[in-house]
Amino acid sequence: MKIVNLAEIEAALDEDQAIAAIAEGFRRFSAGDVQLSAVGHLEFPGSDGDCHIKGAYIVGDDVFVIKLATGFYQNPGKGLSSCNGLMVVMSAKTGEPLALLLDEGHLTNVRTAMAGTIAAKRIMRPGSRILGVIGTGIQAELQARFIAKSCGLASILIWGRNHEASTAIAKRLCDVGFDARSVSGVGELCQTSDIIVTTTPSRAPLIMTDMVKAGARIVAVGADSPGKCELDPHILAKADLIVVDAKQQCIDHGEVSAAVISGLVDPDKLVELGALLEDEGKSIADEAIVIADLTGLGVQDVQIAKTVWRRLSAN
Amino acid sequence: MKIVNLAEIEAALDEDQAIAAIAEGFRRFSAGDVQLSAVGHLEFPGSDGDCHIKGAYIVGDDVFVIKLATGFYQNPGKGLSSCNGLMVVMSAKTGEPLALLLDEGHLTNVRTAMAGTIAAKRIMRPGSRILGVIGTGIQAELQARFIAKSCGLASILIWGRNHEASTAIAKRLCDVGFDARSVSGVGELCQTSDIIVTTTPSRAPLIMTDMVKAGARIVAVGADSPGKCELDPHILAKADLIVVDAKQQCIDHGEVSAAVISGLVDPDKLVELGALLEDEGKSIADEAIVIADLTGLGVQDVQIAKTVWRRLSAN
Repeated sequence: MKIVNLAEIEAALDEDQAIAAIAEGFRRFSAGDVQLSAVGHLEFPGSDGDCHIKGAYIVGDDVFVIKLATGFYQNPGKGLSSCNGLMVVMSAKTGEPLALLLDEGHLTNVRTAMAGTIAAKRIMRPGSRILGVIGTGIQAELQARFIAKSCGLASILIWGRNHEASTAIAKRLCDVGFDARSVSGVGELCQTSDIIVTTTPSRAPLIMTDMVKAGARIVAVGADSPGKCELDPHILAKADLIVVDAKQQCIDHGEVSAAVISGLVDPDKLVELGALLEDEGKSIADEAIVIADLTGLGVQDVQIAKTVWRRLSAN
Repeated sequence: MKIVNLAEIEAALDEDQAIAAIAEGFRRFSAGDVQLSAVGHLEFPGSDGDCHIKGAYIVGDDVFVIKLATGFYQNPGKGLSSCNGLMVVMSAKTGEPLALLLDEGHLTNVRTAMAGTIAAKRIMRPGSRILGVIGTGIQAELQARFIAKSCGLASILIWGRNHEASTAIAKRLCDVGFDARSVSGVGELCQTSDIIVTTTPSRAPLIMTDMVKAGARIVAVGADSPGKCELDPHILAKADLIVVDAKQQCIDHGEVSAAVISGLVDPDKLVELGALLEDEGKSIADEAIVIADLTGLGVQDVQIAKTVWRRLSAN
């Protein structure tokens, strides 16, 4: 069994290959070719922590992947990252463990940002120039970098409750060659941006209906468990197209959940990202309001782990 | 993170400590102190294989444990064991992975045999001498060794559909100092044995009601998923005491499942092993028919992994 540490994972990860693999994962998921295990969950209230356990397998693959991901929210006070975890690559032919990727949560962060990138690229208007980012966490920075690069956007605007944090992110993005600045209000961000990504664990809407202009494109990645929400549910009612990574999971705890449960949105209106990627010919009108709601799927873990594993196996 | 291979695990495993830890795990489970994650499951029909994912945490512990266990039933034809897997010991304080136990399924086999041993010791009649074993797989041999040793039984009788296999097990047990022989019928085995352990994946009863004498003690460990059954359900109706590792899980897919669902057994009659271990003073009449139904709990994995991990950490 190969034991792979974070530095080796980072060195082996080809971003373009991983994005292509994750897009293929969404297509296979929506085609019904992916088995997901029931998500396991343990809680550690004494340490303000939790652990999620996800397994997934794409029919016909030689390998499957189990991921353990922990979040312990007092860790930063101890000089540790809140997120940790690992992925195990197992043989789908013999059940043998093949590789342990000690990614410390990094691959989860990257595969989440890559899903946002894939959605953004599929729904953005031709000629888009400005990316708006809401939030100041790891996802805000990663989504900004991946989306701006992959979609060829010239500028990045960042808003966060913590203005110092959004200024710091903007500076770091400028340091690596992006044109980025923080803005003081969500309204200003919505008015100016061609496409927006929301990345916060907010439990109350940050973008309100009157901020959403014709042609708005929003990728929402923050709502990953029940009760989280970044958009006023009426925005979803107003949307011309709602893209979801997985229908049932988004209805259960995604950004669309409240809107579907309250009857504002007909669940039949939801279009899976994998189906939209498969339907390459489907065009989206420039003035359409389009929302993508991403809650995270085990197939993303499989695809990014496979990308790393195959590169390492080839060496 | 410590990576521990099978030879190191075997060297570090103190059997008496592990049995005591697993008994304590059952007590803590029945006291409501154990969190179990939803069991994850993936299937690989093309390779006749499956994977189970279990996580568990005992409140107050410093660590928790996630187990991956695979069964690929064509492996023996490739010169590989059907069972494989690993356990991950994680910090319950920070979420960091602490140790990877590459046990290849060995700890699962051992913890299952130890649960049988704990149940057998608690329910056996004083003065018992003869252990009857039904089955010829890994569990048959392990249960025979652990129960006979731990309960101080003088002789072992083995019955299996495959007479060559039961003869081979008997020989191997004799080679390591036990008095063991195979028998040609289940009826003979039931008539002669003081306590019986059933270890097969049978889907039809092997022990019938008329084979069960007054004072019979049976530990059934084979039924670990829906549809499996080794005892005629009427035996459960006739039993004076039914012990289960976990009430709800046994009703769902244990040996008692059919008897409860058909109304032969009142679920209120089931007594959890942890509760029976806690109630040391409760005596069982010599003539009572007692059945123990063990389906396997994540807390057994936690306790055996902790036993190994603590020994390794102390070195």
